[in-house]
Amino acid sequence: MKQVAIGIDIGGTNTAIGVVDREGNVLYELQPQLPTPQKKENPNMTEKRSDELCAGYVTELAAEVRVAIETVKKINPDIQVMGIGIGAPNANYYRGTIEVPANLPFVGVINFANLLQAKLPEINIIKLTNDANAAALGELIYGGGIGMKNFVMITLGTGLGSGIIVDGDLVYGQDGFAGELGHTTLVPDGRLCGCGGIGHLEAYCSATGIRRNVFEILAKTNNSESPLANVPYNDMTAKMVYDAAEQNDPIALEVFKYTGELLGRSLADTVHYLSPEAIFLFGGAAAAGDFIFKPTKESMERYLLPVYRNKVQILPSGLKAGSAAIVGASALVWKELDKI
Amino acid sequence: MKQVAIGIDIGGTNTAIGVVDREGNVLYELQPQLPTPQKKENPNMTEKRSDELCAGYVTELAAEVRVAIETVKKINPDIQVMGIGIGAPNANYYRGTIEVPANLPFVGVINFANLLQAKLPEINIIKLTNDANAAALGELIYGGGIGMKNFVMITLGTGLGSGIIVDGDLVYGQDGFAGELGHTTLVPDGRLCGCGGIGHLEAYCSATGIRRNVFEILAKTNNSESPLANVPYNDMTAKMVYDAAEQNDPIALEVFKYTGELLGRSLADTVHYLSPEAIFLFGGAAAAGDFIFKPTKESMERYLLPVYRNKVQILPSGLKAGSAAIVGASALVWKELDKI
Repeated sequence: MKQVAIGIDIGGTNTAIGVVDREGNVLYELQPQLPTPQKKENPNMTEKRSDELCAGYVTELAAEVRVAIETVKKINPDIQVMGIGIGAPNANYYRGTIEVPANLPFVGVINFANLLQAKLPEINIIKLTNDANAAALGELIYGGGIGMKNFVMITLGTGLGSGIIVDGDLVYGQDGFAGELGHTTLVPDGRLCGCGGIGHLEAYCSATGIRRNVFEILAKTNNSESPLANVPYNDMTAKMVYDAAEQNDPIALEVFKYTGELLGRSLADTVHYLSPEAIFLFGGAAAAGDFIFKPTKESMERYLLPVYRNKVQILPSGLKAGSAAIVGASALVWKELDKI
Repeated sequence: MKQVAIGIDIGGTNTAIGVVDREGNVLYELQPQLPTPQKKENPNMTEKRSDELCAGYVTELAAEVRVAIETVKKINPDIQVMGIGIGAPNANYYRGTIEVPANLPFVGVINFANLLQAKLPEINIIKLTNDANAAALGELIYGGGIGMKNFVMITLGTGLGSGIIVDGDLVYGQDGFAGELGHTTLVPDGRLCGCGGIGHLEAYCSATGIRRNVFEILAKTNNSESPLANVPYNDMTAKMVYDAAEQNDPIALEVFKYTGELLGRSLADTVHYLSPEAIFLFGGAAAAGDFIFKPTKESMERYLLPVYRNKVQILPSGLKAGSAAIVGASALVWKELDKI
């Protein structure tokens, strides 16, 4: 028998579903992805309507899981499905719930694992966590974290997510919600964060933070020569900053230097908390390579107590960008099997 | 047989030695304490002289451990010594070493557990960690952390130490040195910390930090009425600020409010990392009770993401101030026995 796990990533727009083997190979991936129910299409939700919407979504999801299983079994009849891992916003690992999600149309606390289990009674393991935690488990099971006991995963996307591995397992904390480094205070009295907080790491060092850094530095320097000075705020992407940096644009180079300085200071704090072997960076902003890794590493080292210096690697994630979400989610299953 | 553990706390001035039972009762404590070799009496150390000094100290320590064991055995011949736990600066749990200690006259990496084991071959367990980590284990084994799986211990003394409990065990990190929250950056471009860093939590919220807060606020307000305005910098203690606060001195009240605001912001970061059940405060500054706990809790809640609010307790340590150091160190032994 060939053991596989099903990985599901519930994003704000679409839900990705895939079948992944123990080595992290994706044997099947649903294309196109399943649309996630949209908040903007469902204003003024009542609990009843939310429950109906969620029930319909779970039914679709279960049907697609069956399609996924049947498809891989056609290619290899010896497939054994070990469980389902789900990455979702505000997912509670302990309770199998999605709780008061900001970007989903659902209301209150959804017993998501139970709802899906009711539709798929033959599946033995159904586990949820948030997407950054799932990515950290993916790194541990399939990626650069294989063989490591202590590391931190930072996902640099629209937001800044994180997952903490201590002694070979994810840190969930008392309630399943540990690892929100993006909402630690980096600059007191600083920028407004998407969450409503002030000066959070996410407001400076996510892909969105990089965009904000561009405009802060343009405002400071008044450099009209930079190609970045011709792009409206809403169109600016981390990729544009990377392309400009490749052309030695001084604004783009300064943006990465500034971002790295701040991220490095925050990661020094991370090291003072956890003394990890490595910190992995994942996501669009991490694709900027040395432009972001070099100033981040230099800054981190400068802020570390001597006892920690030159011990902690900052590494690019070993997960493939395209499939990382379902691969990370599927890792929940193997981790759970390890615990039994 | 009655099982006991020996706790040793190597302080900068003296070394405390005690015998502790599984419930945290101190059955014996060496009085007066054993003097710790002094850095100022041993300038310009060579490695050879450091080794000699350390060997002499370990010999004295082993002799006092034997006295301790004999003394408790005279009272109860059925005593069984399960091991020795040691709290020491820059102690490495994994290697049993004391590494490049700033406040001890020793040079380089001292294989302390091995040196003591050679003198006390009949002892099965000899484990070291730093004093704040030992305090966290003490809280877990004997104190307010009994039954908790996830909490953080903060020791507010001359410095600010910390120990992190995740999933029922201490977080040591890759190298045994995890949990230095005192040296995370609280105020970028802020005060000089004792370690040479800038704006660290320790420079604001330790007993020393409270002293500095007094003088910062006196400088700001120019309040000559406060009794604190008559105390030289070098004489100011957290206790004096507490006494003044009890008399409703506005400077003292403002100092605690300011200290709590900053400590609370930092502890909110701690919650975003670890989502603990509780944060314990220990040490002189924690003795200020509501003066420090109330503004700290209010500030922490204000900085928390909604998902964490009203979930995390800030509690006074359940360890007795006088014996906490040896009791904490002795907890290393019971924790080690749990792992076997």
